[in-house]
Amino acid sequence: MTETRKMSGVLAPVVTPFRADLGPDAPRLVRQCRWLLSQNCGLAVFGTNSEANSLSVDEKIELLDALVDGGVDAARMMPGTGACALPDTVRLTAHAARRGCGGVLMLPPFYYKGVSDEGLFRSYSEVIQRVGDARLRIYLYHIPQVAQVPIGLSLIERLLNAYPDAIAGIKDSSGDWANTEAMLNRFPGFAVFTGSEALLLGNMRGGGAGCISATANISPAAIHDVFVNWRSPDAQARQDKLNEFRQAMQKFPMIPALKQAVARYSGHDGWARVRPPLVELTEAQKAELLAELTARGFAMPGLAAA
Amino acid sequence: MTETRKMSGVLAPVVTPFRADLGPDAPRLVRQCRWLLSQNCGLAVFGTNSEANSLSVDEKIELLDALVDGGVDAARMMPGTGACALPDTVRLTAHAARRGCGGVLMLPPFYYKGVSDEGLFRSYSEVIQRVGDARLRIYLYHIPQVAQVPIGLSLIERLLNAYPDAIAGIKDSSGDWANTEAMLNRFPGFAVFTGSEALLLGNMRGGGAGCISATANISPAAIHDVFVNWRSPDAQARQDKLNEFRQAMQKFPMIPALKQAVARYSGHDGWARVRPPLVELTEAQKAELLAELTARGFAMPGLAAA
Repeated sequence: MTETRKMSGVLAPVVTPFRADLGPDAPRLVRQCRWLLSQNCGLAVFGTNSEANSLSVDEKIELLDALVDGGVDAARMMPGTGACALPDTVRLTAHAARRGCGGVLMLPPFYYKGVSDEGLFRSYSEVIQRVGDARLRIYLYHIPQVAQVPIGLSLIERLLNAYPDAIAGIKDSSGDWANTEAMLNRFPGFAVFTGSEALLLGNMRGGGAGCISATANISPAAIHDVFVNWRSPDAQARQDKLNEFRQAMQKFPMIPALKQAVARYSGHDGWARVRPPLVELTEAQKAELLAELTARGFAMPGLAAA
Repeated sequence: MTETRKMSGVLAPVVTPFRADLGPDAPRLVRQCRWLLSQNCGLAVFGTNSEANSLSVDEKIELLDALVDGGVDAARMMPGTGACALPDTVRLTAHAARRGCGGVLMLPPFYYKGVSDEGLFRSYSEVIQRVGDARLRIYLYHIPQVAQVPIGLSLIERLLNAYPDAIAGIKDSSGDWANTEAMLNRFPGFAVFTGSEALLLGNMRGGGAGCISATANISPAAIHDVFVNWRSPDAQARQDKLNEFRQAMQKFPMIPALKQAVARYSGHDGWARVRPPLVELTEAQKAELLAELTARGFAMPGLAAA
C-alpha cells in the first residue's frame, strides 16, 4: 500500500455561504474554513450539510480552487465529490486529487433506488480508473436515510480487495452503531468516521478515525475535546455534554439552524441564506434558537474577527 | 395565457445509446428519435428510462443540439431538465426553451428528503424566473418511488396560480390512479400524462393528455393506437393488450430490457450498454427476454433500416 497517512479527527461538513443572488460566496467560505482549522477541525466541504448537491460541479471547483489558492491546507480537506452522473463525479474527484486534498467523501450515485452491489461496484470502479491518480483516497459515504442507496459490508469488502489504496475509509451516517461496529471489526485499518458526534466516543474506543458531524460547524472545540481525550476517565462525561448540545440543536432544521448560528456569531446576516429546496428558519425558530444558545453561554471564539 | 398548444399523445422516455467508452452516441440517438417520431411517438428524452441523471448537463446539451441540428422536431420534444442543483436545472431548461422544445419535464431537486412545499415552490419559481423565457412550458415530474420527493396537489395549485403560462402539466408516475384523477378533476386544462400506459385509457376518459411510458420505446404503435382510439367500443380490449405486454416486460429490469430489445431489433449490440449504477441483463435474462418477444411475434418495424 502506498504510504499515505489516512485522515482522522473531527471534520465539519462545512456550511456554504451564499450571496444575495444565491451564488456561492467564496471569500467567506475561505474565512470560515480558516476559522474551523484554528479549532482543530478538518474540512469535509461539499457534504450534505454544505448543500453540496444544490451546487453545480463548476461552482464546487471554483470554491475548491478558492480554498486551496487561499492557503487552506488541502491535506485537511475531504470534499464531497459523489454525484448521480459518472462524468460529474470523475471531474470533481480528479480535481480534488490534483489539488492535493487529503481525501474525498463519495456518495454512491443516488437517483436510481434498489440498484445492485455490482452496479455500485462498477460506479466506484469507473471513477477510480478514470481519475487514474495514485494520490486518490476515497472515503465512502453511507447515508441511507438521505441518499436511499446504502453501502453495505459486502460492497466495501469487494472495493477494498480491488482497490486497497484508493478505498481509505467511510463516513457512516446511518446512526446505526451495530453497522459502524461491524465495519470496525471486519475491516482493520479502514478509517471509519461516524456521521454524528453522538457516536464519537464509542467509535474511538472501537478503533475508529473520528467523526464528520453537522454540529462541528459551530461547536468544533467541544467535539475535538472528546476526540483527543477519549481515553481520559471523564470521557463519558464529556461525551454526555456533546449529546446534550446535539439534542438541543435537533429541535431545529439542522442546516438552516447551523447557518443562523454562524450568521449570529460571525456578525454577517447573509450566512443565514440557503438554496432551494431548503428554507431558512422562521422568525420564531430563529428567536428560539438564539435564545437557547444565549442561555447556554454559547460562543464561537474568534469567528467574528476571522 | 400565451397561445401555445400543449403537448399530448404518447411519448417515450427515450433510452440513451452509449459507445464502448460509455460516452453518449449522439448519431444513434438521432436515428432512434426519428424512428420514434415515425411511429407517432413524442420524445421525452432525458427521462428516468434515459439514464438522464447518469449524464452530465454538458452531455445532455450536446445530445439536444445533435437532435435539433439533426432535424428532429423540437416541438415534439419534452426533455427532462430537473436536477438537484438549481444552476444545472436552469442551464439545461434555458437551453431547451431556446432550442424550441415543446416542453420540459422537470423533476424536483431530489437529494434532500422531507423538504417543504415552500422549498419546492421556491425551486420551481427560481428556475422559471432565471430562465426568463416566455416560451418555457414545464411539465412537473411526480415520481415519488424514485425521486422520493413527491409533488402534491397544493404545490401544483400554488405553482399554477403563480405561473399559469409556464406550468403546463404533469407526468404522474406514481401509478396511483386516485392521484391522477384528483389532478384531472381539480385542475381543468392542466395536461396530465400518466407514467404508464396501463393507465392510458382511464386518463383519456378523464380528460388527460396521454402517457409517457417506458415501453413506448419499443412498442409505440400499440400505445398510440389506444391514444387515438380511446372512444372506440373496443378500447378496453386494446388497453388489455397493452397491459398484458407491459406485465410481460416487467419480469425484467426495465431499462436494460428496453435497451436489449432495441439492440436486438436494430441489429446494433452496443444499444445494450448501460451506465453504472445500472447493469445490463444477464445472459439468462437476455435469452428469456428475446424468447418471449419472439414467441409474441414482436417487431419494431423499420427500426433496422432507420
